[in-house]
Amino acid sequence: MTNKTVRPILEMNAFDKQSPQTENVARRIANTGASSVLFYREPIEMVSAEGVWMTAKDGTRYLDFYNNVPCIGHSHPAVTAAVNKQIATLNTNTRYIVPIVDDYLEALKATFPKELSNVVLTCSGSEANDLAMRLACKHTNGTGFIVTESAYHGNTSLVTQVSPSALKNTSLPEHVIAIPPPAKKYYGDNIEQGFADQVQLAIEELKQRGIKVAALLFDSIFSSDGVFSEPEGFLSKAIEVIHQAGGLYIADEVQPGFARTGTSFWGFQNHNASPDIVTLGKPMGNGFPMAGVVTKPEYLDSFCADVGYFNTFGGNPVAAAAGLAVLKEIKDKNLQENARLMGDYLKAQLQSIAEQSDHIAEVRGSGLFLGIDICHPDSADKPDPEFTVNMIDQFREEHILIGAAGPDGSTLKLRPALCLTKTEADCFIDAFAKILKAS
Amino acid sequence: MTNKTVRPILEMNAFDKQSPQTENVARRIANTGASSVLFYREPIEMVSAEGVWMTAKDGTRYLDFYNNVPCIGHSHPAVTAAVNKQIATLNTNTRYIVPIVDDYLEALKATFPKELSNVVLTCSGSEANDLAMRLACKHTNGTGFIVTESAYHGNTSLVTQVSPSALKNTSLPEHVIAIPPPAKKYYGDNIEQGFADQVQLAIEELKQRGIKVAALLFDSIFSSDGVFSEPEGFLSKAIEVIHQAGGLYIADEVQPGFARTGTSFWGFQNHNASPDIVTLGKPMGNGFPMAGVVTKPEYLDSFCADVGYFNTFGGNPVAAAAGLAVLKEIKDKNLQENARLMGDYLKAQLQSIAEQSDHIAEVRGSGLFLGIDICHPDSADKPDPEFTVNMIDQFREEHILIGAAGPDGSTLKLRPALCLTKTEADCFIDAFAKILKAS
Repeated sequence: MTNKTVRPILEMNAFDKQSPQTENVARRIANTGASSVLFYREPIEMVSAEGVWMTAKDGTRYLDFYNNVPCIGHSHPAVTAAVNKQIATLNTNTRYIVPIVDDYLEALKATFPKELSNVVLTCSGSEANDLAMRLACKHTNGTGFIVTESAYHGNTSLVTQVSPSALKNTSLPEHVIAIPPPAKKYYGDNIEQGFADQVQLAIEELKQRGIKVAALLFDSIFSSDGVFSEPEGFLSKAIEVIHQAGGLYIADEVQPGFARTGTSFWGFQNHNASPDIVTLGKPMGNGFPMAGVVTKPEYLDSFCADVGYFNTFGGNPVAAAAGLAVLKEIKDKNLQENARLMGDYLKAQLQSIAEQSDHIAEVRGSGLFLGIDICHPDSADKPDPEFTVNMIDQFREEHILIGAAGPDGSTLKLRPALCLTKTEADCFIDAFAKILKAS
Repeated sequence: MTNKTVRPILEMNAFDKQSPQTENVARRIANTGASSVLFYREPIEMVSAEGVWMTAKDGTRYLDFYNNVPCIGHSHPAVTAAVNKQIATLNTNTRYIVPIVDDYLEALKATFPKELSNVVLTCSGSEANDLAMRLACKHTNGTGFIVTESAYHGNTSLVTQVSPSALKNTSLPEHVIAIPPPAKKYYGDNIEQGFADQVQLAIEELKQRGIKVAALLFDSIFSSDGVFSEPEGFLSKAIEVIHQAGGLYIADEVQPGFARTGTSFWGFQNHNASPDIVTLGKPMGNGFPMAGVVTKPEYLDSFCADVGYFNTFGGNPVAAAAGLAVLKEIKDKNLQENARLMGDYLKAQLQSIAEQSDHIAEVRGSGLFLGIDICHPDSADKPDPEFTVNMIDQFREEHILIGAAGPDGSTLKLRPALCLTKTEADCFIDAFAKILKAS
């Protein structure tokens, strides 16, 4: 429960602005200043993308194992067609009735437990988590939040407060407690109990600070912490603990949601957990900006009695069309099952290669959301962020895009589109073996 | 400087959920619960829209004088074509270089004073104002904000605090002071001095509360306050006052920006004012969700040293394509000049009709952003929100969409697309005369 320093997530594999800049990189930095965030020691100029592949200006085709937003594949024709049809017809706000919006809301709700029967559509996962936190505060009359040490939940003022991995020189505010992620190294073999105990301690610590807890806010696969999904169901006890304390459980599904984990459509379902509020984002529109909060009606009732909430772009019919196309494609092409099969295959192959290498401490994850811990050759307990960055660069040489996560940036994070084929998975597996062999 | 109760903006012309509901209205309310916000006593189901016109399911074509988002016209073919081309090719985030993004950033920057040379693209005006406020706090080391009594700046937690018109049962927090809008009824003939004096008083009041002021945050046309744009330049002194106190001036251009006021491209330019930070939104992508913050580099430098800010959807190439299409259309079709000409024509005609009616206290505004104060027949000083709602319904009978603003919802707010023709303006003028005559 210490406020440990974690490596800011934006520093991972980031272009160093002190390095020599090509004309286009200089242009970007002149336009966006300190807020510019480019990947790689030498940033890549992209010109097109399709399926799991992105094409750079120099003609190189990169296998995209990083970007989880285009979940059904880059530039997907079903989304293009849906957006094109709707944007040419009607794009307005939710103050009018447009049935495609309700078609989408109903299709989305059908994937959730019945009690989560209200949806608020927003533009970004950040807006969704901002609203979810306020619903929890209003309902519980509390202000305290419990998150994990390297959590990232978004970019608004409120949400940044619960995102330790977005903070550089500032520490967490008093009402936020970060606990160690659900990893064996912190909790041994009983992650479920250990994690629940930490939640209990955090609730008591908040109480000592004179703060009532409002909610647990967890990314259901703990992505920025380094990807933790096992053992199945380990969240259950922590959720019991927060409920006993009168707090809510907010499931942040911005990263694991929409079938990525293969075993279930939503990450929280892998924990047999019943969230009080769920937040969605990134893959929802395959790149069309959209996100949302799925909640029990009573939380909205009390919140909206105090605050008028309206989102101008949230729930526009073009977003609804994009969202419907994504849901349909996942269903029609059985992408959840593909994520499970390809994920299992990838994980097994990578684990088998990892056994031959003293650079790999662990390969874990669910479906097409995997994490690979990179360690010093002399000990599996010594993370090696430098070697990780080098591997990311070597993957680039092999024409594969990949990123890092975890408190020190030593976990490779794999999140290819859900339509990944075995041939494409083999591309990655071969590159992984080659890079490790050469090191 | 009292924390006056203002009528929540979402209650204006809102459907009452206790009323009988059609099947589609019931469906919407079942899906979105307390967060549903529908217009009109009988909500309208829309099926398509084009130019300044929206078509309902029953075939009625409505002249849209309400929606300022589709600024170059509903379902504009240039935006449709640009979005379609880009979304079929590449839609990714700003961690890669995609030149169309910088093309857009540069086209946008060209409309601003040179010192505002950094842009952060976001998904919504709310996200933009959230970030702008944090830049101001970081730079000034202050936390106090001065806004107007019926201001609305967005929906995040932080931004709701400075949006009195979003609050129902809660009052403004201690660090926010709301001052009367720049109306004659508060300041007489010397609005400039009176308004600056109120800003000075607010700064001192904050100081007495132990709070350092961070910024003035004003919508440059004071839209939700009831639309105030005259006399030209009246903001200058208030800005001097805030600068002398070490605070910043944030120009919220989410509503007046992108040529709507006719006399200038940005609302702040009507005040010969140099904002420190500018926020953009609604019309930026003609409905494609996009927004942004335009700022001096130094504010981003210090902010980004503390906080890693990244916006997944912000600055995606599809948004850039939509944004470029909007800027090009405004320029190619001379829409700023059209807004000025049509706005002047509308205002003059409406003023002339208003002179014959004891229901109208004032017609004011700039370009295609006009406000019409509705009053009791016995006194121009007695606002009449009930008559205003009736007028909105009567306009609907005349197949015209219009909304209300102001502290009690008694100001009709006119914001048609910038491509409005004289024939379309005449439609509105005729309906206005007809409705007043019948009353």
